[in-house]
Amino acid sequence: MFLSFEGGEGAGKSTQIQSLLVWLQAQGHTVLVTRQPGGTDYGQRIRHLILDHHPSELLSPRAELFLYLADRAHHVDTVIRPALAAGQIVICDRYADSTLAYQGYGRGLDLNELKTLNHLATGGLQPDLTFWLDLDPALGHARIGDRPGKDRLESEALAFHQKVRSGYAALAAEEPLRWQRVDASLSAQAVLAELKTRLGPYLNSPVEALP
Amino acid sequence: MFLSFEGGEGAGKSTQIQSLLVWLQAQGHTVLVTRQPGGTDYGQRIRHLILDHHPSELLSPRAELFLYLADRAHHVDTVIRPALAAGQIVICDRYADSTLAYQGYGRGLDLNELKTLNHLATGGLQPDLTFWLDLDPALGHARIGDRPGKDRLESEALAFHQKVRSGYAALAAEEPLRWQRVDASLSAQAVLAELKTRLGPYLNSPVEALP
Repeated sequence: MFLSFEGGEGAGKSTQIQSLLVWLQAQGHTVLVTRQPGGTDYGQRIRHLILDHHPSELLSPRAELFLYLADRAHHVDTVIRPALAAGQIVICDRYADSTLAYQGYGRGLDLNELKTLNHLATGGLQPDLTFWLDLDPALGHARIGDRPGKDRLESEALAFHQKVRSGYAALAAEEPLRWQRVDASLSAQAVLAELKTRLGPYLNSPVEALP
Repeated sequence: MFLSFEGGEGAGKSTQIQSLLVWLQAQGHTVLVTRQPGGTDYGQRIRHLILDHHPSELLSPRAELFLYLADRAHHVDTVIRPALAAGQIVICDRYADSTLAYQGYGRGLDLNELKTLNHLATGGLQPDLTFWLDLDPALGHARIGDRPGKDRLESEALAFHQKVRSGYAALAAEEPLRWQRVDASLSAQAVLAELKTRLGPYLNSPVEALP
């Protein structure tokens, strides 16, 4: 089973993923938690390349896109597919939908081209379920305001993040079975309860008995 | 005017490009010499990421491809297009055809997908003329055999480089007007003379008088 988490900065993805991991492991599941960009050693280097402030040269939007895709291709080939093949639950913090939301809806790159590129980078691998932790960007921005070392994405203008949020809404409407919108303005406890409720029906396959 | 150089390792691309640069500048042309991957600061970092030996983790072939495309997109957007718009002659050491030859013919990735990806990465920008410095890979290998610090590509098996060479031949046959094959087993002087002869007809536009 392949789960992805999507949502803006400050929506609480990392916190929720950690809590869900503990809950799933307590039930005997083997769970791999990973992230895009950056879920591999190469991915970390690519992520640094994208996110570092680099004032002497501006990374072109198309170059940024292809770097995300390079990370995704490597991550899918060397981490996600092997884990799924081994029967693990994979939870990925951001996946291909982030490219559509940020580069497509956010920066205005062509959505059909992006879908083609995502398909080529992932070999067509899609999550079974995508949790969208939805939060007004103004609230998200306030939450992370005190966090030290804000990177380039986090300091983008609020208007950009509003476009990203609209993008997520459009994507969720296109594939209502895969997408699960959760109100991320609720308390962390309430959000986690929601996630467990929605995930429940997908976990009814018998867990293998431990030896 | 946009010129690219293609060919295997040891074919003498760097040497010929430097000589051609001197010759063109002596005629009053403004010439920009650049390279893919690595023609920008970001590109250098991407190039290091691809070429460094990294024994703990193998870069997946699709990831390698997308890294080359990221470099290409950034390089085209921030270096090549601005220089062409300013009326300069641009000479590029490797361009999109290298992806077709190395990742397509060499590694067996799908050629039509690669052409689509190249098109998206470059925004459709093609060289006016491509000089293919053609050399038997066994000869090229012998030439660079003593060069210290061989990188990952240079230490690939000879069979791979034979496939790359066949790929260049197929690409040249597809676009005979753009591609100029030059026998790189000749002396550096003889190769340079060939390049000047072939380039001549393209340089007959009047050079602007200096103030």
